[in-house]
Amino acid sequence: MPGASTRLTGIYTPNLVPLDSRGEIFESELRRYVDWLIDRGVHGLYPNGSTGEFTRFTVEERRRIIEIVADQTAGRVPILAGAAEANVKETLRACEYYHRLGVRAVAIVAPFYYKLSPASVYAYFAEIGKNTPIDVTLYNIPLFASPIDVPTVQKLSENFEKIVAIKDSSGDIPHMIRMIMAVRPNRPDFSFLTGWDAALMPLLLIGCDGGTNATSGVVPEITRKLYDLTLSGRLDEARKVQYDLVTLFDSMLFTSEFPNGFRAAAALRGFNLGEGRQPMSPEQKVDLAALSRTLQCLLSEHGFTDQPVGGCPVPGQVPDRGEIDAIVRNVVAELKRRGV
Amino acid sequence: MPGASTRLTGIYTPNLVPLDSRGEIFESELRRYVDWLIDRGVHGLYPNGSTGEFTRFTVEERRRIIEIVADQTAGRVPILAGAAEANVKETLRACEYYHRLGVRAVAIVAPFYYKLSPASVYAYFAEIGKNTPIDVTLYNIPLFASPIDVPTVQKLSENFEKIVAIKDSSGDIPHMIRMIMAVRPNRPDFSFLTGWDAALMPLLLIGCDGGTNATSGVVPEITRKLYDLTLSGRLDEARKVQYDLVTLFDSMLFTSEFPNGFRAAAALRGFNLGEGRQPMSPEQKVDLAALSRTLQCLLSEHGFTDQPVGGCPVPGQVPDRGEIDAIVRNVVAELKRRGV
Amino acid sequence: MPGASTRLTGIYTPNLVPLDSRGEIFESELRRYVDWLIDRGVHGLYPNGSTGEFTRFTVEERRRIIEIVADQTAGRVPILAGAAEANVKETLRACEYYHRLGVRAVAIVAPFYYKLSPASVYAYFAEIGKNTPIDVTLYNIPLFASPIDVPTVQKLSENFEKIVAIKDSSGDIPHMIRMIMAVRPNRPDFSFLTGWDAALMPLLLIGCDGGTNATSGVVPEITRKLYDLTLSGRLDEARKVQYDLVTLFDSMLFTSEFPNGFRAAAALRGFNLGEGRQPMSPEQKVDLAALSRTLQCLLSEHGFTDQPVGGCPVPGQVPDRGEIDAIVRNVVAELKRRGV
Amino acid sequence: MPGASTRLTGIYTPNLVPLDSRGEIFESELRRYVDWLIDRGVHGLYPNGSTGEFTRFTVEERRRIIEIVADQTAGRVPILAGAAEANVKETLRACEYYHRLGVRAVAIVAPFYYKLSPASVYAYFAEIGKNTPIDVTLYNIPLFASPIDVPTVQKLSENFEKIVAIKDSSGDIPHMIRMIMAVRPNRPDFSFLTGWDAALMPLLLIGCDGGTNATSGVVPEITRKLYDLTLSGRLDEARKVQYDLVTLFDSMLFTSEFPNGFRAAAALRGFNLGEGRQPMSPEQKVDLAALSRTLQCLLSEHGFTDQPVGGCPVPGQVPDRGEIDAIVRNVVAELKRRGV
Repeated sequence: MPGASTRLTGIYTPNLVPLDSRGEIFESELRRYVDWLIDRGVHGLYPNGSTGEFTRFTVEERRRIIEIVADQTAGRVPILAGAAEANVKETLRACEYYHRLGVRAVAIVAPFYYKLSPASVYAYFAEIGKNTPIDVTLYNIPLFASPIDVPTVQKLSENFEKIVAIKDSSGDIPHMIRMIMAVRPNRPDFSFLTGWDAALMPLLLIGCDGGTNATSGVVPEITRKLYDLTLSGRLDEARKVQYDLVTLFDSMLFTSEFPNGFRAAAALRGFNLGEGRQPMSPEQKVDLAALSRTLQCLLSEHGFTDQPVGGCPVPGQVPDRGEIDAIVRNVVAELKRRGV
Repeated sequence: MPGASTRLTGIYTPNLVPLDSRGEIFESELRRYVDWLIDRGVHGLYPNGSTGEFTRFTVEERRRIIEIVADQTAGRVPILAGAAEANVKETLRACEYYHRLGVRAVAIVAPFYYKLSPASVYAYFAEIGKNTPIDVTLYNIPLFASPIDVPTVQKLSENFEKIVAIKDSSGDIPHMIRMIMAVRPNRPDFSFLTGWDAALMPLLLIGCDGGTNATSGVVPEITRKLYDLTLSGRLDEARKVQYDLVTLFDSMLFTSEFPNGFRAAAALRGFNLGEGRQPMSPEQKVDLAALSRTLQCLLSEHGFTDQPVGGCPVPGQVPDRGEIDAIVRNVVAELKRRGV
Repeated sequence: MPGASTRLTGIYTPNLVPLDSRGEIFESELRRYVDWLIDRGVHGLYPNGSTGEFTRFTVEERRRIIEIVADQTAGRVPILAGAAEANVKETLRACEYYHRLGVRAVAIVAPFYYKLSPASVYAYFAEIGKNTPIDVTLYNIPLFASPIDVPTVQKLSENFEKIVAIKDSSGDIPHMIRMIMAVRPNRPDFSFLTGWDAALMPLLLIGCDGGTNATSGVVPEITRKLYDLTLSGRLDEARKVQYDLVTLFDSMLFTSEFPNGFRAAAALRGFNLGEGRQPMSPEQKVDLAALSRTLQCLLSEHGFTDQPVGGCPVPGQVPDRGEIDAIVRNVVAELKRRGV
Repeated sequence: MPGASTRLTGIYTPNLVPLDSRGEIFESELRRYVDWLIDRGVHGLYPNGSTGEFTRFTVEERRRIIEIVADQTAGRVPILAGAAEANVKETLRACEYYHRLGVRAVAIVAPFYYKLSPASVYAYFAEIGKNTPIDVTLYNIPLFASPIDVPTVQKLSENFEKIVAIKDSSGDIPHMIRMIMAVRPNRPDFSFLTGWDAALMPLLLIGCDGGTNATSGVVPEITRKLYDLTLSGRLDEARKVQYDLVTLFDSMLFTSEFPNGFRAAAALRGFNLGEGRQPMSPEQKVDLAALSRTLQCLLSEHGFTDQPVGGCPVPGQVPDRGEIDAIVRNVVAELKRRGV
């Protein structure tokens, strides 16, 4: 039986997809982005995730994205390839194709649109677990897709050795503890990854192996640093970085339509992401420009970019209460809207 | 300005897709099913809806389904073609194609997976409304997709004459009243259709124009009769039929994974639907067989099929309280699970 | 067995409680309000409901409210007295006391704060049903209290003849149909009342016996008229009144903290309600004043009050789109906030 | 300005209330329980919390509970007294009374039954903050009461120095981080306590000061040990204790009506709790007996009690998969039912 040493660990970047002026995949920029992420120390790449807007691409485009990322990575870091398609048969075809491309594993979100029962979620992944040629990571994101509950994860892990990990984006720490307790005794090689950057440090401390964290596509230096500080037990420093990461994460996640905040922030790091495929109203474009300015200040505090023209609030100086209130209120309103 | 007389009205059947033993579209059975539905008086057909499991087919299969239904219908009844694809550009391509096939209108569900804000839902449909060559029905199903709220429907109806209707599957009657009040004064030609069979009669009475009702794919005679009785003001009779329809609807909707209950019931009406594309556990198959027996009794009460071998509870006879309790509890548990 | 003729029917007003300048029960104004409601044709009164803010009064005050209402009514109309207290024993004490005061029945909300399972909700009402000296109306308001599901209503109605009715404020019409189907065959005397004014007409048409409707505390003439038009089958007229009632109901319910909108509107009808017991921020007081002006225009359209100084938008005139949008957006935002 | 050194810290026990055979407060047993808890090292007591079923007692009984606990404690540990009453005036009266009894602070839950907006929650606590003679802990439990959001906590902490802490039972770690970031810079003396035992260790690690944890009323030794191990940085040991605490917490919380599981477990520790005030069905009593046996095995593993007659599954031995599955499924079903 494989042991803990074979687990997927570390920070996998759920990477964004740059688009050109016609809205098509911007291949050269995607290749440049892959290099930049690897250079900054992310442990792996995770194309075709939610951050990568997999549902907004065609079947052919999704395959093209993996081809480009795999080719550019050239084995420097492992790749976790999002492989969910319209049904089991199509998903298995994607698994086979990505296997031939040499990726480390695929990640498959639970069926979405329809809200399936645990029995159906099990049956879906069982069919995949039985037939996949490549290791599979379950992807639990109850905000968007049918939830994968603890007994389902337990049974899948016991019955299908090709199912080797779960990425959980619920952000619910007791839930993660329950999964680890249910699975680890029988599958020491099974890996637990979190997609909720706002709780990365505490999740690592209670037993997670790593994360697929959208912030690592924008500030890979910070996400990686948080991972390293936490694992080396420098908790006071880690706590401060975790707080900073919450501020960044909230700004990018809650003040615009996901993943536009992350796209705007990656643009500030020097990438030409283009316009996303989900249309925006003129007001939303104005809001995104304002968010971009706020993000620029946050990034400049860490030396990742210059301050915007006109400058930023001086850290330590008494901040404008009204402005901060407005941001906090927006965040809270969005949290509510999304049922978080 | 077009008036009320041009509205889409009546019962549109969101038809199921028969699959053959290999899981492929069973064309001859689909053609036979189309004829059967038209013969039983449904006012229109609605392929590629939620009941038609549009998300479980490939792009090519979705087009093939519309081709078959349009060809077989041959203009006898209008067709509302589900046209949602991965993004605006792909959706517009589907609109153009279905326009060339001569369907009456398309129906487009709000973006799903990601939960979009009203501004984004507006921007999405505005892009479509601006560029579609064919009339568009908005499709609001908040249980599965981003909700389309009242101000969004109002603005879309005012700004895009190609947007001509909304299908609402929320089942929320005050919500329907609010939409009608917000839209009708400026758009007397705009049509309001409900997808919630359990409230068809009261929704027609407060101003709806019709429905896209999954029950009409199984018992088109009953759904059509309810529509006719309600419109002709025979309310005491209509109420009884509505109650029967709730019993049928609940049995098909809540005691198995949607739309398997409807598929099982349509099989009892003589169609070879095959196995659905979402895998089932052995327990689920047993449950579906038990449901099928219950449905057969319900259908035989109305003369639509023979009783199952072994017979049914005699109507009027004291029923087995335990069995009924079990059904009621299942329904209630399912209602809760789905957040209804 | 009692038959349908003994059912509670008609419109019961869940009456507001006027407070004096010290925040105490304003007895003379409450007496004047009771007379006014009875004069305008409501079929019954329902003190100590949610509209009457029962949770914000002490045990002694709740009793005092019933004493005053019962004394002032003097048998002219039946009274449904809210009797929920801290636990079964205290609730039974209230039942006994209100019984001695001669009220027609009590209404008891399911336990709140803790979210109880159906088994516990049943056990709670069973204990009451066994020991109450007075008829009991179950009160289902899942937004605020533990839900009372269909099997629970069915079992309670079968086992306890003192349980004679349910008031349901879910506004869910199929749910009401399911309850009626489950209960009526065995209990033709059992009454179904709705607390959701926005769906009063369709609920009466599918079989409800009446309502406990907060709008009837403000515009008893309209609520009563809607009831009469619906029961006499004048559906085109009823529909128009139902639409108007939705506009009024939404304005009072969703643009301020419940039941402040109803209190503000009752003040416009000439009653001195005083300030509610839940404190308001200065901004909320300004908002309530603005709402009061909107309500005054709505009421003046029906001749119930003068227009506010400065006048109202002329009906039929093109309304200010921005202002209406703002109201609609507020309503929608509130609907979302409340999870409706 | 007071500094971090004055913060409330440590484990406060939200203690249960023993009832005698007539269902009245069992004073001598409550006194014995208080001594036992203090002897086992809890840092403080928290009577009249949710675990103490404050809503099921009368005003007089709630005061009597604090009198007994305060008298028995006699200053050995600080007391946090739940003080929520029907309205602001009544709540302030309770604050004054408990102040005279010498408790350290009161805890006040946000208004419940009605779901209030943030503005109203602020107005409610502002009125209290302005007039209280005693330090106040805000109590946020969004599952049962109106939520207290981050900007509300921030503004209350800035404007009212008598508001000194928040107890948060959401279990949402990023939410706790957001609160700490919003409040600490201006109020280093403000304390953050968690009520969600299943995440106690990670919450302490990201900056919480302590907890009001129901498990400490049953296994004060374990909760205290987890606190000590975490604060002293012995994380590998702490993690194991946290896992054990999740198992215990889930068993007591999710397999019976809250807080009956905690009452059953405290009985196993030797206290005569009596029957709770919320009635139970016969089936529920059987379930509770089965739960009690499971709990006895869990407690006996830690040496807190003997094994039940018939013994327990031997740790390490292959457990009965079906039985465990059943427990896990129950827990998961309950989690879903409660919307967790």
